[in-house]
Amino acid sequence: MTPQHHLPADIERTSLSIITAELAELGLTPPPETAPVVKRVIHTTADFDYAKNLRFTPGAVAAGVAALRAGTPIVTDTNMALAGITKPGLKKLGSSALCYMAEPEVAAAAKAAGTTRAVASMHRAVAEHPGAILAVGNAPTALLTIAELIEAGLRPALVIGVPVGFVNVVESKERLFAVCETYGVPAIAAMGRKGGSNVAAAICNALVYSAAEMLDPTARGWK
Amino acid sequence: MTPQHHLPADIERTSLSIITAELAELGLTPPPETAPVVKRVIHTTADFDYAKNLRFTPGAVAAGVAALRAGTPIVTDTNMALAGITKPGLKKLGSSALCYMAEPEVAAAAKAAGTTRAVASMHRAVAEHPGAILAVGNAPTALLTIAELIEAGLRPALVIGVPVGFVNVVESKERLFAVCETYGVPAIAAMGRKGGSNVAAAICNALVYSAAEMLDPTARGWK
Repeated sequence: MTPQHHLPADIERTSLSIITAELAELGLTPPPETAPVVKRVIHTTADFDYAKNLRFTPGAVAAGVAALRAGTPIVTDTNMALAGITKPGLKKLGSSALCYMAEPEVAAAAKAAGTTRAVASMHRAVAEHPGAILAVGNAPTALLTIAELIEAGLRPALVIGVPVGFVNVVESKERLFAVCETYGVPAIAAMGRKGGSNVAAAICNALVYSAAEMLDPTARGWK
Repeated sequence: MTPQHHLPADIERTSLSIITAELAELGLTPPPETAPVVKRVIHTTADFDYAKNLRFTPGAVAAGVAALRAGTPIVTDTNMALAGITKPGLKKLGSSALCYMAEPEVAAAAKAAGTTRAVASMHRAVAEHPGAILAVGNAPTALLTIAELIEAGLRPALVIGVPVGFVNVVESKERLFAVCETYGVPAIAAMGRKGGSNVAAAICNALVYSAAEMLDPTARGWK
C-alpha cells in the first residue's frame, strides 16, 4: 500500500468523520455544545481518553466563543501553546494570543518573589489582561495561582486548565475546576494526568474556528 | 488536600520515579539506550502507550546524541515543535533548531509545485541541511517526502517520525521506518496513530539532555 499525498482540508474532513464514528461506537458522542472542542482535542492527540477526561462548566464553550468574538486575548503559559494557536483565525476575529514566560521581567519577578516563572507570568498576565482567556497546558503552579486570584476577585473570560503530568497536576485541575464552579467562572479542564500545550492549543483553536464560523458560515467548523 | 507549589527540578525528579515505577509494574521497562526517550515522551503526554508505540532503529539514540554533540541542527516540520525544544540545551551543545514552515518562500514553492507547505519545507530543509536531524510531529506528507529523498540518496543524521492523526499517518510512519531500515538511516518513530509536535519536541529534548549530560555529568539525565 503506497500512501498518497492529500490536501490538508480533505484530510481534516476525513479525520473528523473517523473521530465522529469512533466516538459513537464507544458510546462517547459528546453533546453539540462541547463536540467541537472534544473532537479537535482527539484530532490533536489521537487519544479518545479525552472524550472522558474533558470537563466543562455549563456554557463554557459559548463563553469562550463570545469572548473571542469580542476581541478578548488568549494568554498561554508556554510559547509552545502560543505557537500552536491559529494566527489567521485570531486575526479574522480581531483577537490575539500572547505568552509572558520568556520575558526577562518575568524571570526577574520570579527570582525576586522566590517563585516559578509560570506563577510570575500568570501574575503579569492578569495584571495586563484581567478579563482574558487563560490557557494553561503545562504548569500546575500557574493553575493554582489562577485559582487563588479568582478567590481574590479575578474574573477571567474563561480558564482552560489542561496541564499534563504526575506531580500536583491532578489536584491542581480539580482545585481550579471547583473554584471556577463556585465563583461562576467558565472553565474547560482535562481531568486526570493527561493534557499538554498541544491540548491547550487545540481547545483554543476549536473556540477560534467556532467563533470564525459564526462570522463566516462557509468557514470550517467541527460540529 | 491543598496542592503545594514545588520547584520544577524536584517535580521532574519525582515524575521520573513515578514513570520508572509504573513502567516496571506494566512490564514495559525500556532498555537503557532508549529509556531517556521513552520516559521523556511519557512525561510529556502522561500516556504509557508510548512505551509500546515508540520504535528505534539499532543505535538511533546514540546517533542522535552524537550528531547533536557535533553541532548538527534539528529541523522541525512545525513552529510548535520548534518552540518546545530546549534552547539553553542546544546552546550548550553548539547546536540549533529551525523550521521553514512559516517562510514566504516555502508557501510560494508549495503553490508553484502544487504541493503542501509541509512538503516544500522539507525540500527546503534538506537543501540547506542535508545531514540534519529531521523531526516530524505533524505532517505525514513531510515524512513521505523524507522517505522518497532517502531512496534518492539523502542521508540525514536521524529522522524522528511522530506525526499524529487518522489519515495516512500510520502508513507514513511504517513506510519511513522501513526505508530507514533498508538504507541504514537512524530513525525513531511512534507507530500507530499517536504522536504530535509535543512528542517530537520531547524526543529532541531527551537527546539534547543526554548529549549535554556527557559534556557535564552534573546535568540532569533520564537514565
